[in-house]
Amino acid sequence: MEDHIVQDSIYILKQSSTRLCKSSREQRDSLLLAIAQGLLNDWSDISQANLLDLEIARKEGQQEALVKRLVFDEEKRNGVIEGLKQVAALEDPIGKILERRLLDTSLLLEKVSFPIGVIGMIFEARPDALVQIVSLCLKSGNGIILKGGKEAVHTNVALAASIQKSALSSPLGKDWLLLLTSHSEVDTMLGMNGQIDLLIPRGSNAFVRYVMEHTSIPVLGHAAGICHMYVDKDADLAMAVDCAFDAKTQYPAACNSIETLLVHKQVAATFIPLVAKKMEEKKVILHGDSFTQSLIDCIAYAQGDYDKEYLALEMNIKVVESFREALDHIAEHGSHHTDAIITENKTVAKEFQLEVDSADVFVNCSTRFSDGFRFGLGAEVGISTAKIHARGPVGLSGLMSSKWLLQGNGQVVSSYSGPHAKPFLHIDLDKGENAK
Amino acid sequence: MEDHIVQDSIYILKQSSTRLCKSSREQRDSLLLAIAQGLLNDWSDISQANLLDLEIARKEGQQEALVKRLVFDEEKRNGVIEGLKQVAALEDPIGKILERRLLDTSLLLEKVSFPIGVIGMIFEARPDALVQIVSLCLKSGNGIILKGGKEAVHTNVALAASIQKSALSSPLGKDWLLLLTSHSEVDTMLGMNGQIDLLIPRGSNAFVRYVMEHTSIPVLGHAAGICHMYVDKDADLAMAVDCAFDAKTQYPAACNSIETLLVHKQVAATFIPLVAKKMEEKKVILHGDSFTQSLIDCIAYAQGDYDKEYLALEMNIKVVESFREALDHIAEHGSHHTDAIITENKTVAKEFQLEVDSADVFVNCSTRFSDGFRFGLGAEVGISTAKIHARGPVGLSGLMSSKWLLQGNGQVVSSYSGPHAKPFLHIDLDKGENAK
Repeated sequence: MEDHIVQDSIYILKQSSTRLCKSSREQRDSLLLAIAQGLLNDWSDISQANLLDLEIARKEGQQEALVKRLVFDEEKRNGVIEGLKQVAALEDPIGKILERRLLDTSLLLEKVSFPIGVIGMIFEARPDALVQIVSLCLKSGNGIILKGGKEAVHTNVALAASIQKSALSSPLGKDWLLLLTSHSEVDTMLGMNGQIDLLIPRGSNAFVRYVMEHTSIPVLGHAAGICHMYVDKDADLAMAVDCAFDAKTQYPAACNSIETLLVHKQVAATFIPLVAKKMEEKKVILHGDSFTQSLIDCIAYAQGDYDKEYLALEMNIKVVESFREALDHIAEHGSHHTDAIITENKTVAKEFQLEVDSADVFVNCSTRFSDGFRFGLGAEVGISTAKIHARGPVGLSGLMSSKWLLQGNGQVVSSYSGPHAKPFLHIDLDKGENAK
Repeated sequence: MEDHIVQDSIYILKQSSTRLCKSSREQRDSLLLAIAQGLLNDWSDISQANLLDLEIARKEGQQEALVKRLVFDEEKRNGVIEGLKQVAALEDPIGKILERRLLDTSLLLEKVSFPIGVIGMIFEARPDALVQIVSLCLKSGNGIILKGGKEAVHTNVALAASIQKSALSSPLGKDWLLLLTSHSEVDTMLGMNGQIDLLIPRGSNAFVRYVMEHTSIPVLGHAAGICHMYVDKDADLAMAVDCAFDAKTQYPAACNSIETLLVHKQVAATFIPLVAKKMEEKKVILHGDSFTQSLIDCIAYAQGDYDKEYLALEMNIKVVESFREALDHIAEHGSHHTDAIITENKTVAKEFQLEVDSADVFVNCSTRFSDGFRFGLGAEVGISTAKIHARGPVGLSGLMSSKWLLQGNGQVVSSYSGPHAKPFLHIDLDKGENAK
């Protein structure tokens, strides 16, 4: 699309999102179920589009991992249909009363949850992610601009067409959803502060950084995922081996996989050979400092290794003199995403959770648990390492903003000011479930 | 200070803020009370510094409003001392359990409130604001970098010296507070993403915009405060006159004062002469559209008036054909700060609160109520028009972030994946008051 057409579509979407903000739970949930039915009705078109994407990807010699994510077969379709039904069954996130306070007689203040407005979501070549993101945004009453990985373009176009067809017969219409398909359209989007309220980019570090540096729209997400596991001197070493193995190998391309294993020197001689042996099962490439090199066969540490996100079966091992050194290492090299400690010492565990400045700080388990589904958030649109708004896995609640509503009967501030100021009552009232 | 000295001080502050995050409620509250006592002990130094600032301001011919804000006399000192005691008495915002969920047997997830980290606060020449900001940041465990209006520089230096002297005998030390005194230091600060977690600029629109455009650090605040009051056809017109008068004249330089009064045409002929007569009491300059001009003596509307923030006894009056036109006007010209409707029609009032996309949306009262103290938030560090994180008046809760803490006994994700995946329990548990 040309620039001005993208811009016009986004203006229309912004207006449509106002309608979405005001829609009833029933309208949004009915549409979610209609979309699920629509995917079945339009299955032949969607499936053909996906086969075309897969053919192109194979022809272009794409990596098998990418091709696997690109597949949108009946199993994945049934998965997203189940997901749509689950999201429809969730409670309404709009209109929740977050605070309620009587400022004075007949002057009632309420802080109420409201949609953020328009969300721009840029994500990898995973067609099931498109449906998941649409379902969360629709449920939360947010207009959504989508740009998926280019390898999935035909599937995404077919999915968006099916969703918009379902939306046509809903009072919400179809304009709250816009699918972009080219990189230049993304640049147009980055410049539309005022029309777009929040950007959630997923993908490579370089890409997320590009987005963060080229827009004044607030961005939620994470550039790097340099996660650590620290094996304390009081660790259960068998547990540490299992947790480290899972945290590195269960899905090495994930942002919550560990890149560096920190080991207290008191247990290094015992633990490092054990963990190295386990890592051999998956042929993990190990980089070690000089202490580690004296214990196992590994690549010698080189400057910069501690700041690398391998995203592969590759990892650093570093021996630390003390718990303090582990904390300092994480503060210096971590990306504030997910870090874990393995220890039986409760005081040390608590200190670790207090001091490590990351979105997710774990004790005695794998870092791979940091995920919206595993956390029980229903689903996630991404993981944020920001310290404002949502932090960690972002589910429905991260897509919500709020408004302060004040209802009076003619009160003016001058009555509450000056030498004869009337005092405020400021009585906190019970929060209700829903303001509507 | 030279650039590198400012940078070094900010690095030290960042480290000190880590200590603050972990401090106990007692440590922070004792220090708040010690600061209150310190202001009494150091009163002679502080008072002399303030007299010097006042002398310079008068010599430079500063406006009386600025001089009034600059005064830091015994009355204002006693006010901030009272404020420090009140903040010390508030409940601890750190360590609140916001969510608690059993993911599986012995795998407990908790979302816990934590300080944001380091806050950069740039504010007007008001010494009492310095103490208020310090008290909120200290209570919430955040390191604080302050830059106050240059007219208050001597008072601010004396206040910061007194506060740091009190902090020296606290286990928290004095390094969590840094006072900057020059504009070039502000520029250094804007470039320190990674060390500073949040900026809260207050002051002129131009200045806030400058900050927003010159930093990649998240910014909380508002550039413009173009607030509206809409007088509906079903309004109580006497109430509308009182509320409009208060909203414009009670403190015209405030961001929550109205700039445009929208009037439904059915009541325009009756209401506009009434409100114009009332506004005469404070010599409010009125700009009117052609309908308004046919009713009262006023300045003819000129292109651009609806986008002006007068911040003075000056206001637009516009007659609208319908409620819809009022909503559209606010969507086009408003700054998403505070807008109010005067109406006896409950359906229209509700529709207004649903649709107007502002931080504060009021019914039948003055827009001047949008303020942290009046809202009962204790105090405020500013008012945000952002839609993420805090929206509207920002109190203690806006200075908090959170962490996800997961405590297991060796769980790995591979047990919960694949064909024989163990299901999660995902049992929501009661939230506790405090995690510590």
